[in-house]
Amino acid sequence: MTASAREPQQDRSRITRERLLASAVDILADQGWAAATVAHVAEEAGVSRGAAQHHFPTREALITAALEQMFTDLTALAAEDLDDLPPGPERIRVVVERAVDIYVGPNFRAALQVWAAAASDEALRERILPLEAKFARAAHAMTLAGLDPEGTDPNAHRLVQATLDLARGLGLAGTLSDDSRRRAQVVGTWADQLTAALRRD
Amino acid sequence: MTASAREPQQDRSRITRERLLASAVDILADQGWAAATVAHVAEEAGVSRGAAQHHFPTREALITAALEQMFTDLTALAAEDLDDLPPGPERIRVVVERAVDIYVGPNFRAALQVWAAAASDEALRERILPLEAKFARAAHAMTLAGLDPEGTDPNAHRLVQATLDLARGLGLAGTLSDDSRRRAQVVGTWADQLTAALRRD
Repeated sequence: MTASAREPQQDRSRITRERLLASAVDILADQGWAAATVAHVAEEAGVSRGAAQHHFPTREALITAALEQMFTDLTALAAEDLDDLPPGPERIRVVVERAVDIYVGPNFRAALQVWAAAASDEALRERILPLEAKFARAAHAMTLAGLDPEGTDPNAHRLVQATLDLARGLGLAGTLSDDSRRRAQVVGTWADQLTAALRRD
Repeated sequence: MTASAREPQQDRSRITRERLLASAVDILADQGWAAATVAHVAEEAGVSRGAAQHHFPTREALITAALEQMFTDLTALAAEDLDDLPPGPERIRVVVERAVDIYVGPNFRAALQVWAAAASDEALRERILPLEAKFARAAHAMTLAGLDPEGTDPNAHRLVQATLDLARGLGLAGTLSDDSRRRAQVVGTWADQLTAALRRD
């Protein structure tokens, strides 16, 4: 009996699904929207076309599941070690950095491809808007918990919104060229602003 | 002699070019990247395919010229009435609104399509990066002139960078659904921050 044959059916199925989703995200991020078809994703994942279509009968189903996976990964990234944040102003800088990290990297680049495609595809837009809303709430809740752990600052909610919009804009600026030096400066500037704003209340 | 035949040759050529560029921007914004081919743009502009190809021999030439046109229009929008800005804190809010306006609307939606395509197309990326850089410098200079007209605030330069990143993030958030109410709140929050920051120096 081979190792593969010993794997319970549901484990193999789960692994195949994960492989397809990871491949879809990679292809979206590196090759763009047009390349992210079920056939091409299956090929790059080393999965048969039949097995891929069993998991994702349509391109829309694959893309939607991949976006869900990206958001889950991004949320997990932002939630990391919320208890380990340093105290004082340093804490604010780390929280801002973490918010910005959500929007930098292959997951955001892949999501941007879906976003751009959805701008001119109403059916896709209807599918992804609830996912986007759920993700936005999670990102907001985590950044708020980081910036205002006691929940006592009346302006924290609005400042978190601005922080996430800034982070999204920095993410977009970083998709075409390496923008990391400039980004670090902007993060520093905004962390100083937040520090003053939260102290001012 | 018809009105059209009386038009000097160069005027007709200029008008055809403008019509093609306007059509390219509309198609990018409403139908997305894949739809923006020379043939489809010519058809929607009511221009013969031969005339379109005379102006833009390749899709790349058309897209690059359209992006240049978008940036010129956006820069003109942001430069409007720089002398008519109100005094005091109200001035800061108007400048932030204007910066955000650059990134909201069909021109930005069209540019986003080019941006997303360029993320996985190195040749396109090399073509548009110099345009992006030129546009970013123009947007920065105008926002700086609005926020710090005397050029005396040492932090204004960095705050303008953050403001334009925020504006880009708000623009992206507004591409999939009407985000105008939330956007107005964030603009207010940001303007308050800038007012406090510029006063603090």
